[in-house]
Amino acid sequence: MITFVVKGGKARTAPDFLLKDLPGSGGRMDLLCRCLTSSLLLSHGIRTDVEVVLCLAGPPSPPRTITVRGDAVRHLSPDERSTAILLQKALAAYRAGETVESTPGITISDIPFAEVVARNAKRLVVLDEGGADIRDVEHVPADACFVLGDHLGFTDEEQALLADAPLTVTVSPKVLHASQCIALVLNECDRRGII
Amino acid sequence: MITFVVKGGKARTAPDFLLKDLPGSGGRMDLLCRCLTSSLLLSHGIRTDVEVVLCLAGPPSPPRTITVRGDAVRHLSPDERSTAILLQKALAAYRAGETVESTPGITISDIPFAEVVARNAKRLVVLDEGGADIRDVEHVPADACFVLGDHLGFTDEEQALLADAPLTVTVSPKVLHASQCIALVLNECDRRGII
Repeated sequence: MITFVVKGGKARTAPDFLLKDLPGSGGRMDLLCRCLTSSLLLSHGIRTDVEVVLCLAGPPSPPRTITVRGDAVRHLSPDERSTAILLQKALAAYRAGETVESTPGITISDIPFAEVVARNAKRLVVLDEGGADIRDVEHVPADACFVLGDHLGFTDEEQALLADAPLTVTVSPKVLHASQCIALVLNECDRRGII
Repeated sequence: MITFVVKGGKARTAPDFLLKDLPGSGGRMDLLCRCLTSSLLLSHGIRTDVEVVLCLAGPPSPPRTITVRGDAVRHLSPDERSTAILLQKALAAYRAGETVESTPGITISDIPFAEVVARNAKRLVVLDEGGADIRDVEHVPADACFVLGDHLGFTDEEQALLADAPLTVTVSPKVLHASQCIALVLNECDRRGII
């Protein structure tokens, strides 16, 4: 199982954001929606061996962590709006201190980003411009947990958490959107037969 | 200048589609929006050496061809909804037999897909599962015109038009969304220093 962890530094942590303004009222919820679909959707199918962990850190009540498993998720469509509705349902289903399944394959909790990183410490692969070219990396683990920042990147504190990751890779000579990076990572995994 | 031509077989050819239902009322307009942003947007910038040609072929009055130039476009944001608004403005600005600029860098005409293909015949690169792996292709032209189908692929008639293309490539061992394919093509171009 490949995992993508995506940080949403300003992503709204209540379900009250407007579907017609995902970038503004949702704190770039559009970006997280694209990361989710980019991770899990093939042209006519779902990647059952991928899961996505979205770490929302915006107002009003961070952290909220939404996990979506490709082998269990239902009703996931490629468009941003319907994906945002699934995230709204997750935020609405939140109960303090619990891990709640809001719709099939989607759970929400208040596990902070630092703990997500700590739990996956041994299989972390950080996406960073300064990393090794993924095409040159000899061994990409079949259970890799790729960690990506949003348009704001990682804070100093987060970077310290990620400093000990076993592997740091880059996928492009240009700085791309997180969802584009995910497509490139998955292509490398597909080509290597990892997933 | 790299060009991406994307066919929207069912894409609505009037500006009356609903922004809250791009997949249904827009005839998968969400897919075209993602192709557009995937082609032109970097994390914090625009690809000025890329243009996108969207060939809309759905009801009520096909064809409509919308061209977006990276070196001239303004107000392009990564989210689907704001991109769809730009396409709506283009459809609303259409005048029969003319090429009309609706907003900076975006033009609309009724040039049919067949003519778009014919005009770019010498630099066509068709994206197709049966093509050569793009990583193995010795020479990717710096003025390549990549042609992609939507979720429906190409009709028999369109495939006949594309049969004489100088190059047919594939980017992935799995069948992906068009916007994901575009990210992979651009990565190969970036790595080769073509753009």
